[in-house]
Amino acid sequence: MTILITNATLIPCTPDMPVIEHGWVRIDGDTIAATGAGPAPSIPGAETLDAGEDIVMPGMVNPHCHIAMSLFRGLGEDVDDRLFRYVLPMERKFVTPQMVRVGTALGALELIEGGVTTVADMYYFETEVGRVVDKAGFRVVAGQTIADFDPPDHKTIDAGFALTEELVAEFRGHPRVLPSIAPHAPYSTDIPVMRRVAEWADRNPDVPVQIHLAEMDSEMEWCAKHHNARPVEVVQRAGLLRKGLICAHCLHINDGEIDIMAHAGVCVGHNARSNAKAGRGIAPVEAMRAAGIPVGVATDGPMSGNTLDMFSQFGPVSMFQKLAGHSRKPMPGKEVIRMATIEGAKVLGLDHRLGSLEAGKQADLIRVSLAPARVQPIYDHYATLVFASMATDVQDVMVAGKWLMRGREVLTLERSKVLRDAHQVATEFKAEMARIDARG
Amino acid sequence: MTILITNATLIPCTPDMPVIEHGWVRIDGDTIAATGAGPAPSIPGAETLDAGEDIVMPGMVNPHCHIAMSLFRGLGEDVDDRLFRYVLPMERKFVTPQMVRVGTALGALELIEGGVTTVADMYYFETEVGRVVDKAGFRVVAGQTIADFDPPDHKTIDAGFALTEELVAEFRGHPRVLPSIAPHAPYSTDIPVMRRVAEWADRNPDVPVQIHLAEMDSEMEWCAKHHNARPVEVVQRAGLLRKGLICAHCLHINDGEIDIMAHAGVCVGHNARSNAKAGRGIAPVEAMRAAGIPVGVATDGPMSGNTLDMFSQFGPVSMFQKLAGHSRKPMPGKEVIRMATIEGAKVLGLDHRLGSLEAGKQADLIRVSLAPARVQPIYDHYATLVFASMATDVQDVMVAGKWLMRGREVLTLERSKVLRDAHQVATEFKAEMARIDARG
Repeated sequence: MTILITNATLIPCTPDMPVIEHGWVRIDGDTIAATGAGPAPSIPGAETLDAGEDIVMPGMVNPHCHIAMSLFRGLGEDVDDRLFRYVLPMERKFVTPQMVRVGTALGALELIEGGVTTVADMYYFETEVGRVVDKAGFRVVAGQTIADFDPPDHKTIDAGFALTEELVAEFRGHPRVLPSIAPHAPYSTDIPVMRRVAEWADRNPDVPVQIHLAEMDSEMEWCAKHHNARPVEVVQRAGLLRKGLICAHCLHINDGEIDIMAHAGVCVGHNARSNAKAGRGIAPVEAMRAAGIPVGVATDGPMSGNTLDMFSQFGPVSMFQKLAGHSRKPMPGKEVIRMATIEGAKVLGLDHRLGSLEAGKQADLIRVSLAPARVQPIYDHYATLVFASMATDVQDVMVAGKWLMRGREVLTLERSKVLRDAHQVATEFKAEMARIDARG
Repeated sequence: MTILITNATLIPCTPDMPVIEHGWVRIDGDTIAATGAGPAPSIPGAETLDAGEDIVMPGMVNPHCHIAMSLFRGLGEDVDDRLFRYVLPMERKFVTPQMVRVGTALGALELIEGGVTTVADMYYFETEVGRVVDKAGFRVVAGQTIADFDPPDHKTIDAGFALTEELVAEFRGHPRVLPSIAPHAPYSTDIPVMRRVAEWADRNPDVPVQIHLAEMDSEMEWCAKHHNARPVEVVQRAGLLRKGLICAHCLHINDGEIDIMAHAGVCVGHNARSNAKAGRGIAPVEAMRAAGIPVGVATDGPMSGNTLDMFSQFGPVSMFQKLAGHSRKPMPGKEVIRMATIEGAKVLGLDHRLGSLEAGKQADLIRVSLAPARVQPIYDHYATLVFASMATDVQDVMVAGKWLMRGREVLTLERSKVLRDAHQVATEFKAEMARIDARG
């Protein structure tokens, strides 16, 4: 089966980040066979899509989120202690395999509608996340959380590892669902747990490791109190600061730690809106990238961000570095889009297969409409994508050569059922919040 | 003529900022006759719109922009000296009444599509802006710029006043176009010019005055060098720091100046994305509002922002204050929406007629869809509007009881012609940029 996309403004996200007017892409099965400029080749029997000069670019890669937390979006806004007041008690009460399926389906709808084709997820009952994403048709690095704060799906660290083993057993070798292990954070998976994860990862080198790192003031205080050290050093002592470790946030890191992280070969998921909305600060993205650390654009969970929308991250990602650098120069649009595609794929160790439109890579791509008055005229396509385009401009989404959305209609999920299920769960959440607030 | 909007999630933006489920609005002619909750009254012959539980709220008020600069959006990105390298030379060469009409029409399309019903504009040939907005059907406080840097439409300050007089003569008493005078900034309209504006304004108390204030480092340096003072004091010395002065930016102001501004009765248009994208900083919005200064959410010109989209400002407006305050608490969603509606109207001195849905006020309102997966579920409608909704969720727009957009189709502008004209101007701009860049 061959698909030919013609008449595209092609943004392939190859190293020199060209913009190819009147470009075309040939897809054979799940793979990009060729790309080019000018008149497309004639291929008898091929399905052809005229992109009408819209942007065709790689599907976006979101290297840190908690998809199922879509059900918590907008809950406990503007409350500093909401983690302990609302989130942890409600997760302990409500997080079941069923809730994870419902929340993941809601998030999956939003992700596809926003042109995201690969995510790294960290949550509970992660095998359920893998199953829902598999059915929705996109890609996930599915991270089973391990933590010591009595999380909803494991009473002991042993039980957490057992869940991870189940996840790996179900999905090892799957073309789109890559099982992953996710020790929660230094303060919730102290050195003995992280050391055990490191040893487990040595025996399972095909399984990526994800962790929250250097995100919160309280984490800095915990590490100082318990280890007289900062988070990066705590992870390093545990033997986990290693090539390919996917670190979310990395807000509170200094130049020395950036050097250590770069030499260790870790990667970073940057959560601009989540960090800002919590009042936490601006991650040193420019410095990390200058040191050679791959950094991707991530959304965090929708309770923090409040969406899984990559486009709404782009402006903040750029603006925050310009604010920190007191200049227009830092983080041009082109670099934001690089981070959201090929560099995000590198963060997940998948850049050999994903993240750019090149012959031999998986056919993961999106079409972004240039019709809105809001984006016209165009002098710089990267500035357009970063500062004017929106998730709702994404028209078509393809993963592994298969259409997941055409003309904004998601083909792999039953929209009305997904929303109905989500509303049912939200009704229970609202009642519980009222009970919590009534208790004061 | 009566219009009845029923089954709305009504966000009227009255002082206690309620959210009214199953609300209704009755519009008689250009005026809101009544609002309520529950079953709507039966009015024979009325046009009825079932809002399907979508949000119905006041049209948004954007108290600072340069609409026609839509034609410059994305031009000269990431270049610190772009004002002198690109903007001023290109404005001198290309800004004509025709270009202003074309750019204003493009911006008007975007503004209506994004649910903005009132803007304060500052540009050249402002009478043309008034004419285009009049035809498009929304409201503008149309500010004729006066400046000493050889702007495109006046060689002398006298000529600038003459343009202002023409504008006032054409639109004084117009129901939707309010003529305004706009001395550009302290550094470009030194004390003698601002004093002359103040005297002119004394004779024309119905004409609002707009100015850029305390925006740039170079402005601080200019004021220090020429007056051994800071911008607020320079404007004060000229007698222009007065009740109702619409000040854009107010980034570089200290607590003492906030007190002075509050006592003078000035109002502020806050341009979060523009200020951040230029690397300039975060305006002390919380402190200004705490002192009683009305502050509105503004977009600035689309060369700075890069759109006229209020929704894409909301997240940054809130996040920046949370970042500055190092807490989740500052600037909750409710306050952002207050600023974008009734407080924005107050900034423009129009809060007695606009900015909330109340009997007797002008019928300026919008319907915002809650259908997208991205906004569901909803625990806090203000958080939804600020952190999850988008301009493209706006379905219907009414100004003065007249529909300007229904089901996302703008009824007052010829979309294809507007875009065609804009592309023609952009082609000339591109050629000139290439010439500037070739000169090095």
